[in-house]
Amino acid sequence: MREVIVQGIGQTRVREHWGRSLRDLAAEAGLAAMRDAGVERIDAVFVGNMLSGQTARQENLGALVADWIGQRGAEGFKVEAACASGAAAFRAAFLAVASGALDAVLAVGVEKMTETPGPETTAALATAADADYEGVQGISFVGLNALIMQRYLHEFQWKHTDFGPFSINAHANGARNPNARLRQPITERDYHRARMICDPINLLDASPIGDGAAAALLLPGEKIAAGPRPRIAVAGSAAATDSVAVHDRKDPVFLSAAALSAQRAYAQAEVKPEQIDFFELHDAFSVLAALSLEACGFAERGQGPRLALDGAIRLDGALPVCTQGGLKARGHPVGATGMYQIVEVVQQLRGEAGENQLSKAGVGMAQNIGGSGASIYTHILKSN
Amino acid sequence: MREVIVQGIGQTRVREHWGRSLRDLAAEAGLAAMRDAGVERIDAVFVGNMLSGQTARQENLGALVADWIGQRGAEGFKVEAACASGAAAFRAAFLAVASGALDAVLAVGVEKMTETPGPETTAALATAADADYEGVQGISFVGLNALIMQRYLHEFQWKHTDFGPFSINAHANGARNPNARLRQPITERDYHRARMICDPINLLDASPIGDGAAAALLLPGEKIAAGPRPRIAVAGSAAATDSVAVHDRKDPVFLSAAALSAQRAYAQAEVKPEQIDFFELHDAFSVLAALSLEACGFAERGQGPRLALDGAIRLDGALPVCTQGGLKARGHPVGATGMYQIVEVVQQLRGEAGENQLSKAGVGMAQNIGGSGASIYTHILKSN
Repeated sequence: MREVIVQGIGQTRVREHWGRSLRDLAAEAGLAAMRDAGVERIDAVFVGNMLSGQTARQENLGALVADWIGQRGAEGFKVEAACASGAAAFRAAFLAVASGALDAVLAVGVEKMTETPGPETTAALATAADADYEGVQGISFVGLNALIMQRYLHEFQWKHTDFGPFSINAHANGARNPNARLRQPITERDYHRARMICDPINLLDASPIGDGAAAALLLPGEKIAAGPRPRIAVAGSAAATDSVAVHDRKDPVFLSAAALSAQRAYAQAEVKPEQIDFFELHDAFSVLAALSLEACGFAERGQGPRLALDGAIRLDGALPVCTQGGLKARGHPVGATGMYQIVEVVQQLRGEAGENQLSKAGVGMAQNIGGSGASIYTHILKSN
Repeated sequence: MREVIVQGIGQTRVREHWGRSLRDLAAEAGLAAMRDAGVERIDAVFVGNMLSGQTARQENLGALVADWIGQRGAEGFKVEAACASGAAAFRAAFLAVASGALDAVLAVGVEKMTETPGPETTAALATAADADYEGVQGISFVGLNALIMQRYLHEFQWKHTDFGPFSINAHANGARNPNARLRQPITERDYHRARMICDPINLLDASPIGDGAAAALLLPGEKIAAGPRPRIAVAGSAAATDSVAVHDRKDPVFLSAAALSAQRAYAQAEVKPEQIDFFELHDAFSVLAALSLEACGFAERGQGPRLALDGAIRLDGALPVCTQGGLKARGHPVGATGMYQIVEVVQQLRGEAGENQLSKAGVGMAQNIGGSGASIYTHILKSN
């Protein structure tokens, strides 16, 4: 396998982009990544997206985006793995470059969600769940995660308020990220008083939907001349699945696909969890942050919230998470989220993370979750 | 790059499968491919599908199918490229095995279309076109192809009836394929009298929708011991795009993405068009058969129908096409079609094509088209 380098990154702000089309957003991020890499022609573009067919009446995004960024002729397809579509597109791009079949490959994650009426968006998001056994009951995606959180609180004896520091940390970092959807810091008092959405998930446990796109341009290491910028290598790229239906799992409060994909990524990158400098995790709901930390070996079973309560997840902590605001504050344009995570890891590794820059950022990890734990992608990037 | 071998194939019949779910169909084909290959554990499953979000309210098919075939933990995502989703999934699987990252990879194409009310299916299929510039005008997918055919008739001075032999050949072969959706042979008289759908496309120019799944199990050549069965290698795997909107193309009656992807595949496989023994082409509409033959170098510009009129495309001709019925008679369950083509090529190369077996079948080609020429995949398989 060839070494794969992330040579360029690009992103749009996450917000309500009512005046802009899906392809425009994808092109802004994609062209920025190509400029950043100094690449004018690409071989392929793989587009991570979940909802375009349902909300924009548009499929065939590979060809659509290739054309809009001036790369007619390049190959391309859409990759879908629910909210992990972004990381899945990145993985497809990684495999293509690693294989030797293609050289310059663009991975773009893009989603437009805010123009669609709320009930339609909720129904569209529920297609990440099991249509025949969960969706048919009318349960929403928030509802499924609320059941998981309720069970977690019961099983490990935490109070709801113990999850506050996850959201407070995310908002603190998001406030300093110019691309974030929510840039207001929040307090413990805000968290406690937030409106209940689906007990026990309140408004500040849940990430906001949004419109946006993020992209990365991948090249084989052998084609890159040494330059002044740090070389960002994909040291680990792995994925795993679990049952889509939550009730079908051996243990609904353990993300086995996160554990499996993290183990695979650690083995490839030849690192242990303690060597990860920071972690862009998938805090779609605060309970998922805890589950992700536990599955990846950063906390014992049931002890994820401890890392947040102790401040270990803050920028000055032992394992900073969601350094640019995470899903909670940067925002969660579902099919784009996994690519935002990759872009943010690269920013940190390059020392380009602005006010959120970490002092130590040599090995970064991103984990993207599709469905309530069904499709999970873990990537480890290294600066060398 | 590692050599990639198609070690197993599987398919369901194409028909109305009202009593069976999407995952059941995918599992029937996928498990058959695994059994055929003698493989019990896979590393990944990539699922080609276009419409599941819109028609089955189900996304996240990678995890869904992995679970349903007893491969929980294996990675997987859905690949979408409109009607070329099947071949796109096959290409993703090919790249994964070629890279060395994964060994046993299953590509499954699956679609359920017949339970959805007709107008909804028509609207869903229109998401293969450009939503902002074509879909918004209310034009259907058949409508777009009718414009292409009309222009072709005008430009190259063919009569509508000159396209009859494409459909007659497809039905003749489909009648002998136990998995085909339409098993009635048709006559020239039937073709002439067929109901007009969208002038000049009549009912017998158009392929029928359907429900079905087809799958292939890929392994690296280095892991396969010599056996009694012929070794089916993926000698060429290539794709290309053109603008999604037909009016945006330099020439609406030339499939530039077909030409580009075929040239790439020929170069990889080190063959010339005249060395291709048979060709599973994408006859969603009869005019596409002509355009595909021209773009791939089998006929001069505007001369595609000549091959049909002369009988060259028949099983006993110089370049048999649609040997198991093609989209026209085997049926066109859109996201599955590209995988049916691959399965049918393998059947011929193995000498397992039943009553449609060709006497000479050493090098076979499949071409799958997504949108009215926007995303085109060409694969060349060799028996050795």
